[in-house]
Amino acid sequence: MKLLNTQNVLIVGLGLMGGSYAKALRRLDFHISAIDTNRDSIDYAVENNIIDEGSCSADSALIEKADIIVFALYPKLIKEWIENNQQYFKSGAIITDVTGVKSCIVYDIQEILRDDVEFIAAHPMAGREVYGVRNSTEKMFRDANFLVVPTEKNSEEAIEWCKELGRLLGFINVTVLSPEEHDRMIGFVSQLTHCIAVALMTCSDNTHLADYTADSFRDLTRIANINEVMWSELFLLNKEPLLADIDRFINEMKTLRDMLENGDREGLMEKMKLSTERRAAFNK
Amino acid sequence: MKLLNTQNVLIVGLGLMGGSYAKALRRLDFHISAIDTNRDSIDYAVENNIIDEGSCSADSALIEKADIIVFALYPKLIKEWIENNQQYFKSGAIITDVTGVKSCIVYDIQEILRDDVEFIAAHPMAGREVYGVRNSTEKMFRDANFLVVPTEKNSEEAIEWCKELGRLLGFINVTVLSPEEHDRMIGFVSQLTHCIAVALMTCSDNTHLADYTADSFRDLTRIANINEVMWSELFLLNKEPLLADIDRFINEMKTLRDMLENGDREGLMEKMKLSTERRAAFNK
Repeated sequence: MKLLNTQNVLIVGLGLMGGSYAKALRRLDFHISAIDTNRDSIDYAVENNIIDEGSCSADSALIEKADIIVFALYPKLIKEWIENNQQYFKSGAIITDVTGVKSCIVYDIQEILRDDVEFIAAHPMAGREVYGVRNSTEKMFRDANFLVVPTEKNSEEAIEWCKELGRLLGFINVTVLSPEEHDRMIGFVSQLTHCIAVALMTCSDNTHLADYTADSFRDLTRIANINEVMWSELFLLNKEPLLADIDRFINEMKTLRDMLENGDREGLMEKMKLSTERRAAFNK
Repeated sequence: MKLLNTQNVLIVGLGLMGGSYAKALRRLDFHISAIDTNRDSIDYAVENNIIDEGSCSADSALIEKADIIVFALYPKLIKEWIENNQQYFKSGAIITDVTGVKSCIVYDIQEILRDDVEFIAAHPMAGREVYGVRNSTEKMFRDANFLVVPTEKNSEEAIEWCKELGRLLGFINVTVLSPEEHDRMIGFVSQLTHCIAVALMTCSDNTHLADYTADSFRDLTRIANINEVMWSELFLLNKEPLLADIDRFINEMKTLRDMLENGDREGLMEKMKLSTERRAAFNK
């Protein structure tokens, strides 16, 4: 199970992420095919040499020759797609994904998957505020983290294969962690922050303040421009860790609020000092 | 009351903001003097041609020749400084400030000020996460907003003078608004965002997640690196508007939290759509 640039890679779901995988891997001379229900995406990708060939349906010929299948679909669609099409999978094929939640899908997929193929989950922590194959670019992988998320069912070989995939795609950091660790982490660093950005935009109509905004407000709400279909699904698929994070955050906001109401300047300064100390760990 | 580049400008408080005013105005051939209790700041600024002359104490000779005095001090120090030193002010001098809260200080200052000088408040909405005259740069005014914050006591002439000052300093936008409008606006776009960033860092110890953070988390917490002395004072001086904003925000977080707990995907998507719509107004 080695990554060889003679292999056939099939990308299922040719949007921003699928297109970026295609561009990065094709540059390394892999043969790239793609399946996407949107004809325009497939046509655009073929015309622009992003993929070698593609189809708008689950074309068995494309599936049968794939050594590697990358699912760049919404989380809930992956399991169904596999159930409907795994009879065409090549024996020994390796399957991976790009979804931002793991516990809720990884075990299910491994449960239903044929024994002679292996699913190793991955989360490329990269994104843009735009969508679709037209906006795809492998540049978004630079400076970003690639997370390999194995279960006990995965072979050491598949884990190493997936780490190599992350490096080939151009990610600066490749890390391995369990589905549960992954989901707790992502609840805090990604989902909670998106929830906060949304709440900041929806808590009152402050669009008349747009002329006055400082960079801090723009930075905080950049991600308030949000794909509601994808993110509502991600939130609900990671409900428990995210609820715990939101509750901790709301409690802390209340603590700061009460300090402010009570004129507790020492308390506020202690919190701000702790904030500054901790933030230092996050400086690039 | 015109801005002439032959005038003497005295900057009281030579930190990041005072130093940046000095650099911007000296480039336009104003004569710049500064008073700061920190000898190192004054020495550095003289040696590096940031100011023409300076003093570590309230030197009456410097004060007496100033046509323009800029207070770049912590809010609470300004009133006391004026009380102690206004006997040296030149008749007809114009005085301004850079503080981030207005209602709580502007009226007080105008109340105690001599009748033959005028105080016109301003808020240069620019900043960096570093401090001191060594880090000062007029570049931080580009792309930033300069707010002129008059009361009914101010003359039209002083308001026009202050708008011209903002343009000369290099701000891209110059706007006039009342102290009350200013404080409500700043509570939302600046103080609430800083409060959120602090709460995000202090709600749990997540520094072990630093390796996994995406750009969204870094953007959201850039301002969690915070000067606790200045910001605790700013928060407390703008307590009522800020408390109202925090409460609205906490309520909205609770609404989103309950939607998540109840699996209300439609509700979450509606909020996210509204967020995206509103955020569009804030795109540069």
